[in-house]
Amino acid sequence: MAVADPIARLVKELAKLPGIGEKTAQRLAFHILKAGPGYAGELAGAIAGVVRDVRLCSECQTLTDKDPCAVCADPRRDSRIICVVEGVPDLLAVERTHEFRGRYHVLHGALSPLDGIGPSELKIRELLLRLEREPAEEIVVATNPDVEGEATALYLTKLLKPLGVKVTRIAQGIPMGGDLEYADQVTLARALAGRREL
Amino acid sequence: MAVADPIARLVKELAKLPGIGEKTAQRLAFHILKAGPGYAGELAGAIAGVVRDVRLCSECQTLTDKDPCAVCADPRRDSRIICVVEGVPDLLAVERTHEFRGRYHVLHGALSPLDGIGPSELKIRELLLRLEREPAEEIVVATNPDVEGEATALYLTKLLKPLGVKVTRIAQGIPMGGDLEYADQVTLARALAGRREL
Repeated sequence: MAVADPIARLVKELAKLPGIGEKTAQRLAFHILKAGPGYAGELAGAIAGVVRDVRLCSECQTLTDKDPCAVCADPRRDSRIICVVEGVPDLLAVERTHEFRGRYHVLHGALSPLDGIGPSELKIRELLLRLEREPAEEIVVATNPDVEGEATALYLTKLLKPLGVKVTRIAQGIPMGGDLEYADQVTLARALAGRREL
Repeated sequence: MAVADPIARLVKELAKLPGIGEKTAQRLAFHILKAGPGYAGELAGAIAGVVRDVRLCSECQTLTDKDPCAVCADPRRDSRIICVVEGVPDLLAVERTHEFRGRYHVLHGALSPLDGIGPSELKIRELLLRLEREPAEEIVVATNPDVEGEATALYLTKLLKPLGVKVTRIAQGIPMGGDLEYADQVTLARALAGRREL
C-alpha cells in the first residue's frame, strides 16, 4: 500500500520547494495533518494571500503589498542615494545593518548569460526610467561579490557613469571575526587594495 | 523596513513546520512568490485537501481517504496477523520491505507518561474492539526500540496475552552493513540473546 492520494499529492507539491526532499516533504505533510484543520487553513490562506496581495513596488521593484513600498513612501529616506541589490533578501540584509538611509532598487537577479539572463531580464530599464524621473547622486551597487554579481556591477557602471551619476561598490575584504590565514587570495588581495588610512 | 505583511504572515506559518527555521521559511516564501500563482494554488489546494479528505481508517486507524483503507479492503491481506506500529511512516516502512502480508494497526504515538501520553491517548481501545470483532492469531509489535516504544510493547503484551493471542516483537540486533566493533552494548546483547540456529 502506498500513502493515501491526498497525502501523496501534498508530498509531491512540498517536494518542489528548494531544499525539501521526498522524506522531508512526507514529514511536513504528516505534521500538517497532525496539526489539524486550523493550522492547515492558516497556511493555505497565507500561501494564497501572498501571491494575491504581493506585487512589485513601481518605484524600487521590491516585493510589497502597498505601492509605493514602505521605503519609497518614507519621506525621511534619502532619494539621492540608491542601493542596487539582486534580490529582496539582500535588501532586508542591508536594512538590518540600520546603516543605510537611502532608497533601494531590486534587480530580481544578476547577469548570467549561460542561464539566459541578460539585461532585459533584470529590472535595469526600470532603474533608468526612475533616474530620468528623479535623478540620484549616488548608486551603491550591492550585488553579490560572485561572477554574476561582479558582471552586473560592471555592466551597471558602464551604463550609469555616462549619465553623470556617481557609481560605488560595497567593499570587499576580510569579514568580521575572519582569519587572514584562511582567507582566499582574491578576498585578501581586495582587502589590501581597499585599505584605508586610520 | 521589514518584509511586506503577507510575506511576513507566510514566513510565520512556514516557520511552524518541524525543522523549518526563520531563514528557511523566508527562502521558501520567496520561492513560492517567484514560482507564481500556479504553484501557490496547487500547494494551497493540496494543504486544504489533505485535512479535508484524509481521515482515520475505522479498522486499522491509518490515515486514508477511503474507509476502509487499501490494506484493510484488500482480501489478499491476511487478517489473522496484525502488525502494530506507532505511526503511518512506520507502516509505510514495513510496507516497503514487501515481507509482510498481514494487516496493520496504527497507535498514533507511544506511551510516554512524562509527555502526558497514556494508553487512552493511543488507539489501543480501537485495537481491543477490533480483536473482539475479528480475533487475530498473532500481533507483531513493531514499535520503535526506544524507551517509549519498549514501554508500549510491554504494555500491549500484558494486555493482549491474557486474550490468548500470540504477541511477538520485531527482532533487535546489528543492522545490515553494521559493525560489531561500533555497536552499542544493548544492541549487541540483544543480538546475542536473539541468536538463531543456521
